[in-house]
Amino acid sequence: MNVVANVFRGEAVESSHLGHVAVVDANGTLLYWYGDPHRLTFARSSMKPIQAIPVVETGAADHFGLEPADLSLCCASHSGEPRHRERALGMLARCGQTEAALQCGTHVPRDEESYKQLLREGRPLTPVYSNCSGKHAGMIATAVHMGEDLDAYHHPEHPVQQRILDAVSDLTSYPREKITLATDGCGVPVHRLPLAHCAWAYAKLAKPDAIANPLRRQAIRRITEAMTAHPEMVGGSNRYCTDLMRAFRGRVIGKAGAEAVYCLGDRQTGLGVAVKIEDGGARALYAVVNEVLRQVGIGTDGPLEELAAYTEPVVTNMSGTAVGRIETRFALNRDSAALRA
Amino acid sequence: MNVVANVFRGEAVESSHLGHVAVVDANGTLLYWYGDPHRLTFARSSMKPIQAIPVVETGAADHFGLEPADLSLCCASHSGEPRHRERALGMLARCGQTEAALQCGTHVPRDEESYKQLLREGRPLTPVYSNCSGKHAGMIATAVHMGEDLDAYHHPEHPVQQRILDAVSDLTSYPREKITLATDGCGVPVHRLPLAHCAWAYAKLAKPDAIANPLRRQAIRRITEAMTAHPEMVGGSNRYCTDLMRAFRGRVIGKAGAEAVYCLGDRQTGLGVAVKIEDGGARALYAVVNEVLRQVGIGTDGPLEELAAYTEPVVTNMSGTAVGRIETRFALNRDSAALRA
Repeated sequence: MNVVANVFRGEAVESSHLGHVAVVDANGTLLYWYGDPHRLTFARSSMKPIQAIPVVETGAADHFGLEPADLSLCCASHSGEPRHRERALGMLARCGQTEAALQCGTHVPRDEESYKQLLREGRPLTPVYSNCSGKHAGMIATAVHMGEDLDAYHHPEHPVQQRILDAVSDLTSYPREKITLATDGCGVPVHRLPLAHCAWAYAKLAKPDAIANPLRRQAIRRITEAMTAHPEMVGGSNRYCTDLMRAFRGRVIGKAGAEAVYCLGDRQTGLGVAVKIEDGGARALYAVVNEVLRQVGIGTDGPLEELAAYTEPVVTNMSGTAVGRIETRFALNRDSAALRA
Repeated sequence: MNVVANVFRGEAVESSHLGHVAVVDANGTLLYWYGDPHRLTFARSSMKPIQAIPVVETGAADHFGLEPADLSLCCASHSGEPRHRERALGMLARCGQTEAALQCGTHVPRDEESYKQLLREGRPLTPVYSNCSGKHAGMIATAVHMGEDLDAYHHPEHPVQQRILDAVSDLTSYPREKITLATDGCGVPVHRLPLAHCAWAYAKLAKPDAIANPLRRQAIRRITEAMTAHPEMVGGSNRYCTDLMRAFRGRVIGKAGAEAVYCLGDRQTGLGVAVKIEDGGARALYAVVNEVLRQVGIGTDGPLEELAAYTEPVVTNMSGTAVGRIETRFALNRDSAALRA
């Protein structure tokens, strides 16, 4: 049983989470694993940095004068804070569009204060509050720049999504025709991939040197540097993605996905990491990612200490008293198997 | 691998849940099981009907003139709707107390409209919004009636909690000294029990005939009849506990617990059922309970059809479009092993 974390109430285990881990280098060698590193996994929002590649490659980013913070927001599952909403609206304005163009739907934002303010003012939730509004603004910018149909940019057959599918296949080294598509929470296609291939993509995002196409190499550098220069755009206050990239000071890029997916790439070792919690619950996810980093030796020289709040999450009761904790428990297996491209 | 449910996105499995099931009769015979029916499990709020027993047995319910709907609210994890809050405040008033006596802490209630109204009016969340405020009001009524310290009624050593521990041990036929305690979300002790013993307790709640003490037998009948007469107090609008008891028209009593626990008792067959989802996530829980009932043959004559909305939950995206579903997949094992009392 590939348990990755136990949830304790007092000193007894109340619940437990299974999980899968793959650690891969930029050549596609699987170096460490746990559970099933080849598990077919909907990569969800962990693919956002790759979904942003066409925003740069088509020339849309330059044409509309998108700033690094805008590109970072394209890679975000943001908290809906004022800075996120303002920037998403600004991106739409730059390409002559409004919030009405967003096809992402909406949801209660993570930023409680933004939601409370909305209710106090009697205003409704709108699509810009969606954690995906930056990604959608990037997709819209690309479609406007390319002169493509704007109403259907979220459909699988639309050129916006076809370019993304090509980029996902390229970066993950996984054949386009083997990628099963379904629909993400925000209405766009999601990509089902072996977990190790997601890790491989992040190894390439971290070290794109071996990518043949120089324009793609440049686009990747521009996007990932935007993420590490503006990590507050990728998540927000008290969010793991933001805190991880801050703690590593430009060394690591990381992005969570719904249903408890995490992917990161380390520029120093050139390693890519991908994690999936089997049940899709995210409460143990960041503790597991921290523990993978510790076992592989990434960030043990300081950054992981800055991320200590995520290492052993406290379970509190409704009065705020600690009544339990989440503890990781797994040992990565070492390997050196070549993945098939 | 004791998978009980798969979460599909499109036609592919995205995440899966492990689980455990025990079906036991009032004599303590384990008749059906899946996973580990002996799993040590914090029973959480599934013990609320048992936690209500001392409210009746001490005479507090009669002394303060508690109505059946009040007793039902003592067994509730309610949604914080106006009817729940008013009744909890009414119970407190009947024993000369106010909301200030509640030690349950608070949280955002499930009833969105109640929360929105609070925010619109600029008022803070208070303990009566806690889903446990009815249970706590019952504990307070008991302590007031018995002339016990009111500030510490939630502490494990307080007579209120000691009486509850006795009742839990009695109903579950599990030795008091083997019950590990921890702290529940609302600050009171929770009880760690083998899952099959939770099922056994519910078999006895459904058919208390064999319970030797006539006062306990009467107390159980009064509480469980209050639950089935006022199921709207146990949960609220669009809540499984409420809908289950309505659909079975007095035949079944059921109560959910946090971290994905469910217990129910069937007055017709005399069977008790207990379910725990290993990862503590509740999204597949009611579908699993429905499927257990179907396999055991409880409610196949109509009630399960009324509960069809819980049988295969739909996964929607943020625009409300169906993009997946939750499917149960398990076959109960048959057994006829006697549990040790």
